[in-house]
Amino acid sequence: MRVLGIDPGLTRCGVGVVDGTVGRPLTMVHVGVYRTPADLDIARRLHRLEQMVEAGVLEHRPDVVAVERVFSQNNVRTVMGTAQASGVAMLVAARHGIPVHLHTPSEVKASVTGSGRADKAQVTQMVTRLLRLTEAPKPADAADALAIAICHIWRGGAQNRLELAVAAAARATPTRSPR
Amino acid sequence: MRVLGIDPGLTRCGVGVVDGTVGRPLTMVHVGVYRTPADLDIARRLHRLEQMVEAGVLEHRPDVVAVERVFSQNNVRTVMGTAQASGVAMLVAARHGIPVHLHTPSEVKASVTGSGRADKAQVTQMVTRLLRLTEAPKPADAADALAIAICHIWRGGAQNRLELAVAAAARATPTRSPR
Repeated sequence: MRVLGIDPGLTRCGVGVVDGTVGRPLTMVHVGVYRTPADLDIARRLHRLEQMVEAGVLEHRPDVVAVERVFSQNNVRTVMGTAQASGVAMLVAARHGIPVHLHTPSEVKASVTGSGRADKAQVTQMVTRLLRLTEAPKPADAADALAIAICHIWRGGAQNRLELAVAAAARATPTRSPR
Repeated sequence: MRVLGIDPGLTRCGVGVVDGTVGRPLTMVHVGVYRTPADLDIARRLHRLEQMVEAGVLEHRPDVVAVERVFSQNNVRTVMGTAQASGVAMLVAARHGIPVHLHTPSEVKASVTGSGRADKAQVTQMVTRLLRLTEAPKPADAADALAIAICHIWRGGAQNRLELAVAAAARATPTRSPR
Protein backbone atom coordinates (compact mmCIF):
# COMPACT_ATOMS: atom_id res chain seq x y z
CA MET A 1 0.00 0.00 0.00
CA ARG A 2 1.23 3.46 -0.90
CA VAL A 3 0.19 6.31 1.38
CA LEU A 4 0.59 10.02 0.75
CA GLY A 5 0.81 11.69 4.16
CA ILE A 6 0.02 15.38 4.37
CA ASP A 7 0.79 17.80 7.20
CA PRO A 8 -1.43 20.63 5.97
CA GLY A 9 -0.42 24.27 5.94
CA LEU A 10 -0.49 27.29 3.66
CA THR A 11 3.04 28.52 4.31
CA ARG A 12 4.54 25.03 4.52
CA CYS A 13 2.60 21.87 3.63
CA GLY A 14 4.59 18.74 4.44
CA VAL A 15 4.20 15.77 2.09
CA GLY A 16 5.58 12.26 2.48
CA VAL A 17 4.97 9.13 0.43
CA VAL A 18 5.54 5.77 2.10
CA ASP A 19 5.09 2.24 0.78
CA GLY A 20 4.36 -0.56 3.22
CA THR A 21 1.98 -2.90 4.99
CA VAL A 22 1.57 -3.91 8.62
CA GLY A 23 4.44 -6.11 9.78
CA ARG A 24 6.73 -5.39 6.83
CA PRO A 25 9.58 -2.86 6.53
CA LEU A 26 8.50 0.57 5.30
CA THR A 27 9.97 2.36 2.29
CA MET A 28 10.12 6.12 1.81
CA VAL A 29 9.20 7.03 -1.77
CA HIS A 30 9.20 10.80 -1.50
CA VAL A 31 9.41 13.61 1.02
CA GLY A 32 9.03 17.34 0.53
CA VAL A 33 7.33 20.58 1.43
CA TYR A 34 4.93 22.60 -0.69
CA ARG A 35 5.27 26.30 0.04
CA THR A 36 3.11 29.24 -1.00
CA PRO A 37 4.24 32.85 -0.66
CA ALA A 38 2.78 34.69 2.36
CA ASP A 39 2.39 37.90 0.33
CA LEU A 40 -0.06 36.29 -2.11
CA ASP A 41 -3.78 36.46 -1.29
CA ILE A 42 -5.31 33.33 0.24
CA ALA A 43 -7.32 32.40 -2.86
CA ARG A 44 -4.19 32.27 -5.00
CA ARG A 45 -2.23 30.44 -2.32
CA LEU A 46 -4.93 27.76 -2.21
CA HIS A 47 -4.84 27.52 -5.99
CA ARG A 48 -1.04 27.11 -5.99
CA LEU A 49 -1.30 24.46 -3.31
CA GLU A 50 -3.96 22.63 -5.31
CA GLN A 51 -1.67 22.53 -8.33
CA MET A 52 1.20 21.12 -6.27
CA VAL A 53 -0.94 18.47 -4.55
CA GLU A 54 -2.44 17.52 -7.91
CA ALA A 55 1.04 17.11 -9.41
CA GLY A 56 2.13 15.04 -6.39
CA VAL A 57 -0.90 12.74 -6.66
CA LEU A 58 -0.33 12.25 -10.39
CA GLU A 59 3.37 11.55 -9.87
CA HIS A 60 3.10 9.12 -6.94
CA ARG A 61 -0.37 7.59 -7.45
CA PRO A 62 -1.04 6.89 -3.76
CA ASP A 63 -3.68 4.30 -2.75
CA VAL A 64 -4.68 6.43 0.24
CA VAL A 65 -4.19 10.05 1.26
CA ALA A 66 -3.73 10.51 5.03
CA VAL A 67 -4.11 14.03 6.40
CA GLU A 68 -3.45 15.36 9.87
CA ARG A 69 -6.73 16.44 11.45
CA VAL A 70 -6.89 20.15 12.18
CA PHE A 71 -8.43 21.29 15.44
CA SER A 72 -10.01 24.69 15.88
CA GLN A 73 -8.51 24.91 19.37
CA ASN A 74 -5.06 25.33 17.81
CA ASN A 75 -3.41 28.65 17.05
CA VAL A 76 -6.36 30.87 16.06
CA ARG A 77 -4.24 33.04 13.78
CA THR A 78 -3.25 30.21 11.45
CA VAL A 79 -6.02 27.65 11.95
CA MET A 80 -8.21 28.90 9.13
CA GLY A 81 -5.42 28.65 6.56
CA THR A 82 -4.46 25.22 7.85
CA ALA A 83 -8.07 24.03 7.64
CA GLN A 84 -8.37 25.34 4.10
CA ALA A 85 -5.06 23.75 3.07
CA SER A 86 -6.25 20.40 4.43
CA GLY A 87 -9.52 20.88 2.54
CA VAL A 88 -7.62 21.41 -0.70
CA ALA A 89 -5.61 18.22 -0.14
CA MET A 90 -8.78 16.22 0.58
CA LEU A 91 -10.55 17.69 -2.42
CA VAL A 92 -7.75 16.73 -4.81
CA ALA A 93 -7.72 13.17 -3.44
CA ALA A 94 -11.52 12.86 -3.79
CA ARG A 95 -11.30 14.13 -7.37
CA HIS A 96 -9.00 11.19 -8.15
CA GLY A 97 -11.19 8.69 -6.29
CA ILE A 98 -8.51 8.15 -3.64
CA PRO A 99 -9.79 7.41 -0.10
CA VAL A 100 -8.89 10.07 2.47
CA HIS A 101 -8.25 9.40 6.16
CA LEU A 102 -7.68 11.86 8.96
CA HIS A 103 -5.47 11.14 11.96
CA THR A 104 -5.10 13.36 15.01
CA PRO A 105 -1.65 14.64 16.02
CA SER A 106 -1.79 12.37 19.12
CA GLU A 107 -2.60 9.29 17.02
CA VAL A 108 0.32 10.08 14.74
CA LYS A 109 2.78 10.60 17.61
CA ALA A 110 1.57 7.50 19.43
CA SER A 111 1.92 5.40 16.26
CA VAL A 112 5.56 6.19 15.63
CA THR A 113 6.90 6.83 19.16
CA GLY A 114 4.52 4.96 21.46
CA SER A 115 3.50 8.23 23.17
CA GLY A 116 0.75 10.63 22.11
CA ARG A 117 2.66 13.45 23.78
CA ALA A 118 6.05 12.95 22.09
CA ASP A 119 7.84 16.08 20.91
CA LYS A 120 8.87 16.90 17.34
CA ALA A 121 12.46 15.73 17.84
CA GLN A 122 11.27 12.30 19.00
CA VAL A 123 8.89 11.96 16.04
CA THR A 124 11.65 12.94 13.61
CA GLN A 125 14.06 10.48 15.21
CA MET A 126 11.61 7.57 14.97
CA VAL A 127 10.62 8.41 11.39
CA THR A 128 14.30 8.43 10.43
CA ARG A 129 14.82 5.05 12.11
CA LEU A 130 11.63 3.39 10.80
CA LEU A 131 12.36 4.42 7.23
CA ARG A 132 16.07 3.55 7.63
CA LEU A 133 17.15 7.00 6.40
CA THR A 134 20.78 8.09 6.68
CA GLU A 135 19.73 11.54 7.90
CA ALA A 136 16.63 13.14 9.41
CA PRO A 137 14.09 14.53 6.94
CA LYS A 138 13.86 18.33 7.11
CA PRO A 139 12.02 20.56 7.81
CA ALA A 140 9.85 19.21 10.64
CA ASP A 141 6.71 19.43 8.47
CA ALA A 142 8.24 16.89 6.09
CA ALA A 143 9.02 14.46 8.94
CA ASP A 144 5.48 14.91 10.26
CA ALA A 145 4.03 14.08 6.84
CA LEU A 146 6.03 10.83 6.79
CA ALA A 147 4.84 10.06 10.34
CA ILE A 148 1.22 10.55 9.21
CA ALA A 149 1.73 8.11 6.32
CA ILE A 150 3.34 5.54 8.65
CA CYS A 151 0.54 6.02 11.19
CA HIS A 152 -2.00 5.28 8.49
CA ILE A 153 -0.25 2.11 7.32
CA TRP A 154 -0.01 0.79 10.88
CA ARG A 155 -3.49 1.77 12.04
CA GLY A 156 -5.20 0.61 8.87
CA GLY A 157 -5.19 -3.18 8.75
CA ALA A 158 -8.42 -4.82 7.54
CA GLN A 159 -10.19 -1.50 7.00
CA ASN A 160 -7.45 -0.43 4.56
CA ARG A 161 -7.66 -3.63 2.55
CA LEU A 162 -11.43 -3.33 2.22
CA GLU A 163 -11.21 0.28 1.08
CA LEU A 164 -8.47 -0.40 -1.41
CA ALA A 165 -10.58 -3.16 -2.96
CA VAL A 166 -13.62 -0.89 -3.19
CA ALA A 167 -11.60 1.98 -4.68
CA ALA A 168 -9.94 -0.33 -7.21
CA ALA A 169 -13.32 -1.78 -8.23
CA ALA A 170 -14.74 1.74 -8.61
CA ARG A 171 -11.84 2.78 -10.85
CA ALA A 172 -12.16 -0.41 -12.94
CA THR A 173 -15.93 -0.03 -13.46
CA PRO A 174 -16.85 3.26 -15.13
CA THR A 175 -20.09 4.69 -13.71
CA ARG A 176 -23.05 4.18 -16.01
CA SER A 177 -26.36 5.97 -15.85
CA PRO A 178 -29.41 3.68 -15.54
CA ARG A 179 -31.24 3.08 -18.79
CA MET B 1 -20.06 44.81 -12.20
CA ARG B 2 -21.29 41.27 -11.56
CA VAL B 3 -20.57 39.82 -8.11
CA LEU B 4 -20.99 36.22 -6.99
CA GLY B 5 -21.64 36.32 -3.26
CA ILE B 6 -20.97 33.17 -1.27
CA ASP B 7 -22.11 32.31 2.26
CA PRO B 8 -19.85 29.30 2.73
CA GLY B 9 -20.96 26.04 4.28
CA LEU B 10 -20.70 22.31 3.68
CA THR B 11 -24.32 21.42 4.41
CA ARG B 12 -25.72 24.55 2.79
CA CYS B 13 -23.61 27.00 0.79
CA GLY B 14 -25.61 30.09 -0.19
CA VAL B 15 -24.85 31.66 -3.57
CA GLY B 16 -26.20 34.90 -4.99
CA VAL B 17 -25.27 36.74 -8.17
CA VAL B 18 -25.95 40.48 -8.34
CA ASP B 19 -25.26 43.04 -11.08
CA GLY B 20 -24.73 46.66 -10.11
CA THR B 21 -22.50 49.62 -9.38
CA VAL B 22 -22.49 52.20 -6.60
CA GLY B 23 -25.44 54.61 -6.93
CA ARG B 24 -27.42 52.53 -9.45
CA PRO B 25 -30.25 50.06 -8.87
CA LEU B 26 -29.12 46.47 -8.26
CA THR B 27 -30.27 43.46 -10.25
CA MET B 28 -30.47 39.90 -8.95
CA VAL B 29 -29.17 37.48 -11.58
CA HIS B 30 -29.30 34.26 -9.59
CA VAL B 31 -29.87 32.93 -6.11
CA GLY B 32 -29.53 29.41 -4.77
CA VAL B 33 -28.03 27.00 -2.29
CA TYR B 34 -25.46 24.29 -2.95
CA ARG B 35 -25.99 21.34 -0.64
CA THR B 36 -23.79 18.32 0.06
CA PRO B 37 -25.06 15.25 1.91
CA ALA B 38 -23.99 15.05 5.56
CA ASP B 39 -23.48 11.28 5.29
CA LEU B 40 -20.72 11.66 2.69
CA ASP B 41 -17.12 12.00 3.92
CA ILE B 42 -15.68 15.52 3.99
CA ALA B 43 -13.32 14.96 1.07
CA ARG B 44 -16.17 13.99 -1.23
CA ARG B 45 -18.38 16.80 0.05
CA LEU B 46 -15.63 19.30 -0.78
CA HIS B 47 -15.28 17.77 -4.22
CA ARG B 48 -19.05 18.03 -4.85
CA LEU B 49 -19.02 21.63 -3.69
CA GLU B 50 -16.10 22.39 -5.99
CA GLN B 51 -18.04 21.03 -8.95
CA MET B 52 -21.10 23.15 -8.11
CA VAL B 53 -19.08 26.34 -7.58
CA GLU B 54 -17.18 25.67 -10.81
CA ALA B 55 -20.47 25.25 -12.71
CA GLY B 56 -21.84 28.45 -11.13
CA VAL B 57 -18.73 30.45 -12.09
CA LEU B 58 -18.85 29.15 -15.64
CA GLU B 59 -22.57 29.91 -15.95
CA HIS B 60 -22.58 33.40 -14.46
CA ARG B 61 -19.04 34.63 -15.22
CA PRO B 62 -18.76 36.98 -12.22
CA ASP B 63 -16.21 39.83 -12.23
CA VAL B 64 -15.60 39.35 -8.52
CA VAL B 65 -16.28 36.59 -5.99
CA ALA B 66 -17.20 37.91 -2.52
CA VAL B 67 -17.06 35.43 0.35
CA GLU B 68 -18.16 35.84 3.96
CA ARG B 69 -15.11 35.73 6.20
CA VAL B 70 -15.13 32.77 8.58
CA PHE B 71 -14.00 33.33 12.15
CA SER B 72 -12.61 30.55 14.27
CA GLN B 73 -14.48 31.94 17.29
CA ASN B 74 -17.76 30.76 15.71
CA ASN B 75 -19.39 27.40 16.39
CA VAL B 76 -16.41 25.08 16.88
CA ARG B 77 -18.32 22.04 15.65
CA THR B 78 -18.94 23.43 12.17
CA VAL B 79 -16.18 25.99 11.74
CA MET B 80 -13.69 23.64 10.09
CA GLY B 81 -16.18 22.59 7.40
CA THR B 82 -17.17 26.20 6.84
CA ALA B 83 -13.54 27.27 6.53
CA GLN B 84 -12.88 24.46 4.05
CA ALA B 85 -15.99 25.30 2.03
CA SER B 86 -14.88 28.94 1.82
CA GLY B 87 -11.43 27.73 0.75
CA VAL B 88 -12.96 25.71 -2.08
CA ALA B 89 -14.93 28.75 -3.29
CA MET B 90 -11.80 30.93 -3.20
CA LEU B 91 -9.75 28.28 -4.98
CA VAL B 92 -12.24 27.97 -7.85
CA ALA B 93 -12.32 31.75 -8.28
CA ALA B 94 -8.51 31.96 -8.31
CA ARG B 95 -8.38 29.19 -10.88
CA HIS B 96 -10.46 31.36 -13.21
CA GLY B 97 -8.43 34.51 -12.46
CA ILE B 98 -11.38 36.14 -10.69
CA PRO B 99 -10.51 38.47 -7.78
CA VAL B 100 -11.76 37.27 -4.38
CA HIS B 101 -12.80 39.54 -1.52
CA LEU B 102 -13.77 38.64 2.02
CA HIS B 103 -16.28 40.61 4.07
CA THR B 104 -17.06 40.05 7.73
CA PRO B 105 -20.64 39.29 8.81
CA SER B 106 -20.79 42.72 10.51
CA GLU B 107 -19.66 44.49 7.35
CA VAL B 108 -22.32 42.68 5.35
CA LYS B 109 -25.10 43.46 7.84
CA ALA B 110 -24.02 47.09 8.13
CA SER B 111 -23.96 47.48 4.34
CA VAL B 112 -27.52 46.36 3.75
CA THR B 113 -29.27 47.38 7.00
CA GLY B 114 -27.11 50.18 8.42
CA SER B 115 -26.39 48.11 11.54
CA GLY B 116 -23.61 45.57 12.03
CA ARG B 117 -25.77 43.80 14.60
CA ALA B 118 -28.91 43.34 12.49
CA ASP B 119 -30.65 39.97 12.72
CA LYS B 120 -31.29 37.57 9.85
CA ALA B 121 -34.87 38.73 9.32
CA GLN B 122 -33.74 42.32 8.90
CA VAL B 123 -31.02 41.34 6.41
CA THR B 124 -33.51 39.27 4.41
CA GLN B 125 -36.02 42.12 4.40
CA MET B 126 -33.49 44.65 3.12
CA VAL B 127 -32.11 42.27 0.48
CA THR B 128 -35.67 41.71 -0.78
CA ARG B 129 -36.28 45.46 -0.92
CA LEU B 130 -32.93 46.45 -2.46
CA LEU B 131 -33.28 43.85 -5.22
CA ARG B 132 -36.99 44.70 -5.69
CA LEU B 133 -38.00 41.03 -5.29
CA THR B 134 -41.66 40.07 -4.96
CA GLU B 135 -40.84 37.62 -2.17
CA ALA B 136 -37.98 37.00 0.25
CA PRO B 137 -35.21 34.68 -0.98
CA LYS B 138 -35.10 31.42 0.96
CA PRO B 139 -33.41 29.80 2.82
CA ALA B 140 -31.55 32.39 4.91
CA ASP B 141 -28.18 31.30 3.45
CA ALA B 142 -29.39 32.39 0.01
CA ALA B 143 -30.42 35.83 1.31
CA ASP B 144 -27.06 36.15 3.07
CA ALA B 145 -25.21 35.35 -0.15
CA LEU B 146 -27.11 38.14 -1.93
CA ALA B 147 -26.30 40.48 0.97
CA ILE B 148 -22.60 39.65 0.61
CA ALA B 149 -22.72 40.47 -3.11
CA ILE B 150 -24.51 43.77 -2.43
CA CYS B 151 -22.04 44.60 0.33
CA HIS B 152 -19.18 44.10 -2.08
CA ILE B 153 -20.72 46.30 -4.77
CA TRP B 154 -21.32 49.12 -2.30
CA ARG B 155 -18.02 48.90 -0.42
CA GLY B 156 -15.94 48.50 -3.56
CA GLY B 157 -15.82 51.81 -5.40
CA ALA B 158 -12.44 52.81 -6.83
CA GLN B 159 -10.70 49.67 -5.58
CA ASN B 160 -13.16 47.51 -7.53
CA ARG B 161 -12.63 49.41 -10.76
CA LEU B 162 -8.87 49.12 -10.47
CA GLU B 163 -9.04 45.38 -9.83
CA LEU B 164 -11.44 44.74 -12.68
CA ALA B 165 -9.11 46.56 -15.07
CA VAL B 166 -6.10 44.54 -13.86
CA ALA B 167 -8.00 41.23 -14.08
CA ALA B 168 -9.30 42.06 -17.56
CA ALA B 169 -5.79 42.97 -18.74
CA ALA B 170 -4.41 39.72 -17.28
CA ARG B 171 -7.05 37.68 -19.10
CA ALA B 172 -6.41 39.55 -22.38
CA THR B 173 -2.62 39.05 -22.23
CA PRO B 174 -1.64 35.37 -22.08
CA THR B 175 1.38 34.81 -19.87
CA ARG B 176 4.56 34.21 -21.84
CA SER B 177 7.74 32.74 -20.56
CA PRO B 178 10.82 34.95 -21.05
CA ARG B 179 12.98 33.98 -24.04
